[in-house]
Amino acid sequence: MTAREFFSRVRQRLVRYGVGELLAGWWFSRRLTRHGIIVASDGHPWPKVINRGGVIHTENCQFYSGVRLEVGPGGRIEIGNGTYLNRNTEVHAATLVSIGRTCKISWDVVIMDSDMHTLPGRVSEKPVVIEDDVWIGCRSIVLKGVRIGRGAVIAAGSVVTKDIPAGAIAGGVPARVLSTVKEAADRG
Amino acid sequence: MTAREFFSRVRQRLVRYGVGELLAGWWFSRRLTRHGIIVASDGHPWPKVINRGGVIHTENCQFYSGVRLEVGPGGRIEIGNGTYLNRNTEVHAATLVSIGRTCKISWDVVIMDSDMHTLPGRVSEKPVVIEDDVWIGCRSIVLKGVRIGRGAVIAAGSVVTKDIPAGAIAGGVPARVLSTVKEAADRG
Amino acid sequence: MTAREFFSRVRQRLVRYGVGELLAGWWFSRRLTRHGIIVASDGHPWPKVINRGGVIHTENCQFYSGVRLEVGPGGRIEIGNGTYLNRNTEVHAATLVSIGRTCKISWDVVIMDSDMHTLPGRVSEKPVVIEDDVWIGCRSIVLKGVRIGRGAVIAAGSVVTKDIPAGAIAGGVPARVLSTVKEAADRG
Repeated sequence: MTAREFFSRVRQRLVRYGVGELLAGWWFSRRLTRHGIIVASDGHPWPKVINRGGVIHTENCQFYSGVRLEVGPGGRIEIGNGTYLNRNTEVHAATLVSIGRTCKISWDVVIMDSDMHTLPGRVSEKPVVIEDDVWIGCRSIVLKGVRIGRGAVIAAGSVVTKDIPAGAIAGGVPARVLSTVKEAADRG
Repeated sequence: MTAREFFSRVRQRLVRYGVGELLAGWWFSRRLTRHGIIVASDGHPWPKVINRGGVIHTENCQFYSGVRLEVGPGGRIEIGNGTYLNRNTEVHAATLVSIGRTCKISWDVVIMDSDMHTLPGRVSEKPVVIEDDVWIGCRSIVLKGVRIGRGAVIAAGSVVTKDIPAGAIAGGVPARVLSTVKEAADRG
Repeated sequence: MTAREFFSRVRQRLVRYGVGELLAGWWFSRRLTRHGIIVASDGHPWPKVINRGGVIHTENCQFYSGVRLEVGPGGRIEIGNGTYLNRNTEVHAATLVSIGRTCKISWDVVIMDSDMHTLPGRVSEKPVVIEDDVWIGCRSIVLKGVRIGRGAVIAAGSVVTKDIPAGAIAGGVPARVLSTVKEAADRG
């Protein structure tokens, strides 16, 4: 990206988000290991990073108030371009949580790649991968080892314990595939 | 209501809620389009209104800390007399969320009449109607297009995706009718 | 415990938690009826006690930010040694909520022994007993009358409406036994 393109983008963002959200985003982004332009929206309480020895790589992203990114030693959070995390959403990475591009992560969502505690005979940490263009409804929980395929939609209040294929609409506790985005369009 | 009745009511409320909650309620109510006497309980963070061009009509209501009323352009929230919304409960109206009289809405409840995003072939907004005397348990989510009948009870942690008849006790994800208030009384 | 043992313990805790969390814990603990050494972690908003005429007895415990202990008239909360309650977890006791020793209660958990409102023919309050070494996953709700047996594990996002036996791994809405800690160890 040339300096010109960079400033043009900053200008677009200034018009769209206002100085406050960009300044707040810049302040927040200093806690990230590597990052694009960050927008911090919706005011207090500011997004929070708890980094115990891992890395957080994001592209240009938007974080709303109360968002919490937590990485353990050797843990890694990756968030792709154009993705936002809405209010109070939490990401906990002991190994890897990878969120793709232009994902819409709603409010009060928890994404964690770890059981937080170990049980005998049970692997307690497995990477979570959320592919591009995924929508996750409010109050959902995504647990360790889950891969959510490209463009999938997770209904509000779901607990995702197993992989969800690309383009699926899934919901429930535990989350099951209810339909697909294509079927919904065909019915329409 | 005569002036005398008005002041008598204010006095009753002063005794019941204290000056602080009434003052806070008055401050909050200025954000509402039309309203009765509002009580804002439980202190900081104060209830919040995000109005992007809709209307909020309430009668005499009580809102606890962290409540969030959000209306989009042309959206409408109606809340009946004697209803309260407990801590951190959120109402999102893109078209209409109508909550009846003397409803008890617990804490951390989300009521929304919209998917927030559109999918091809899928209507993303439908009114939510909650009739009089409904109880909604903590952490429940009420999704678009749902009508909850008079006097129904929604168990804690439910996700309500379909209509619930009057007098039913419903729960689960998605919420199903488990019993009725009358049956429970007969068994008792 | 001799004075020497006492100071040795305080010293251990100082090293582990730092002065701030112990001071905050001491400040918070003044609201408890009887208590051991309390650690208040993770800063603002501080743990909160709403006591309407009951008692709260804890041994040495750790409370994270936003924890809320609420007892009604004649209600009782008991929390055993070495147990922690993570961020924003709430305990509501109208009669009795008893939590054992070295329990790990995750964040955003609600534990309540009451329906909060009465229905005709329905007992609205029954004690909740959580035995020693229980783990409760984030965003779970434990409802009235439930006993969770020693060492049981409750998955994230569960709503526990019935007793869970000792050593079980349970999850879902309503929570069912999915496996046992022993089975998981044998498979491993």
